Amino acid sequence: MNCLLLPTEHFSQDSAIINNLLQINHVNHVLAAKVGDTLKIGQLGGNLGTAIIEEIAARCIQLGDVQLSVVPPAKLNLTVILALPRPKVLRRLIMDMTALGVRDIILINSYRTQKSYWQSPMLSRLDEFVLEGLQQGVDSIAPRITLQKRFKPFVEDELASLITNRAIVAHPYSDLSFSQYVQQHRLAKPRQDKTLLADTNLSNSASLPSLVCIGAEGGWIDYEVELLTAQGCQAVHIGPRILRTEAAVNAILGQWLL
Amino acid sequence: MNCLLLPTEHFSQDSAIINNLLQINHVNHVLAAKVGDTLKIGQLGGNLGTAIIEEIAARCIQLGDVQLSVVPPAKLNLTVILALPRPKVLRRLIMDMTALGVRDIILINSYRTQKSYWQSPMLSRLDEFVLEGLQQGVDSIAPRITLQKRFKPFVEDELASLITNRAIVAHPYSDLSFSQYVQQHRLAKPRQDKTLLADTNLSNSASLPSLVCIGAEGGWIDYEVELLTAQGCQAVHIGPRILRTEAAVNAILGQWLL
Repeated sequence: MNCLLLPTEHFSQDSAIINNLLQINHVNHVLAAKVGDTLKIGQLGGNLGTAIIEEIAARCIQLGDVQLSVVPPAKLNLTVILALPRPKVLRRLIMDMTALGVRDIILINSYRTQKSYWQSPMLSRLDEFVLEGLQQGVDSIAPRITLQKRFKPFVEDELASLITNRAIVAHPYSDLSFSQYVQQHRLAKPRQDKTLLADTNLSNSASLPSLVCIGAEGGWIDYEVELLTAQGCQAVHIGPRILRTEAAVNAILGQWLL
Repeated sequence: MNCLLLPTEHFSQDSAIINNLLQINHVNHVLAAKVGDTLKIGQLGGNLGTAIIEEIAARCIQLGDVQLSVVPPAKLNLTVILALPRPKVLRRLIMDMTALGVRDIILINSYRTQKSYWQSPMLSRLDEFVLEGLQQGVDSIAPRITLQKRFKPFVEDELASLITNRAIVAHPYSDLSFSQYVQQHRLAKPRQDKTLLADTNLSNSASLPSLVCIGAEGGWIDYEVELLTAQGCQAVHIGPRILRTEAAVNAILGQWLL
């Protein structure tokens, strides 16, 4: 936890309380903080800032001098459509996508998603994983997470309307690499002189798509890739190596880093 | 396991044996393969290819018609210097760096590395994690892994000679972002016409450094960053968000993807 996020109703004028036991444990045992120490905090959905510990009890920490003046970092202009992964990796994937600043996450069914994954108790804990990701990434704005248990109706009826800029689907058998794709869109921009070129290149994010589809272990089957490309997703590969889903998601989303 | 790697001594003409219990378990229970089925295999340090299952016993699988004609993917021209992380994440980090194709991995002490990490039994299992990473990434060439328990002598006496191209150190308080750094080196290249520009841009890897230093949880302290930059490492940040070490490593190394 690189900051402690508290819900709005725990704030009152310039004071606040922590009653989440994981957060209390973090303050006591990881930070080993004491009365009078300053904590990095934030308001869920609001600003980030600091507060001073006024009192530590077993189930409640009282904070004073709350200052919330730091605007959270901008969300990425990015929707990730992810084939629902194994429950074991779901937590870390939600945490990481949240920490990276993804704005919309859509967990979707796929041929290689086992039916049992949709029954996992982990799916009822998404808010918890989002909170972990926000506290890791020092952000206060949760991504929107949607579950789509039916692949075909979602892709055929809803996907196109979600593509605000461009969309890709990660697929190892595509002829086009993700890096070639980004270069194509970078080169496609107008550039008359060196300055403009420099500016254009520096705004890397404009050459990136606004929607990315990533399969879970085993990737998408051809039929799924066909449906996705029919709705405007360009298939791109990320090289000859096959990465764990977690590694692939972070490696791909790393392109959106500053 | 996207391929099964076997040591050279397990091959004999066009046959081979599997006697690693994890691999046997994978063949039997994950692939549910039977006599006559084709397996994707590789020779550790050699080529990749296929073989046919001739016999399955409890502790040994006999393979025939071994064909090893696929050259493994090129290693990345990249050395990663990583502050030794918590043992719990070491396995996944070694796996991921291996799967991504990092050529050299140096695990180094840092101020925020707890001394106990160097006593972890996980450090004696690196070969196992490398094998997992190679079998995940479909590669047969192991990265070189070196342990450096003394930060200062290593950085002052050995680091400079390891920088074949350029080097960066990930540091959240740098003024320069990694993306700006890459752009600077891309723009620094000669380009006379559109064709040349396109070529240059597409060979993205040439604008990337050949050595990356990444801290573990909590990052490097200022003193460490000073020593690293004194030896030629440019400090770069990767945005306002703080990522888990694993996520950061994959997000940074994702820049080397095709």
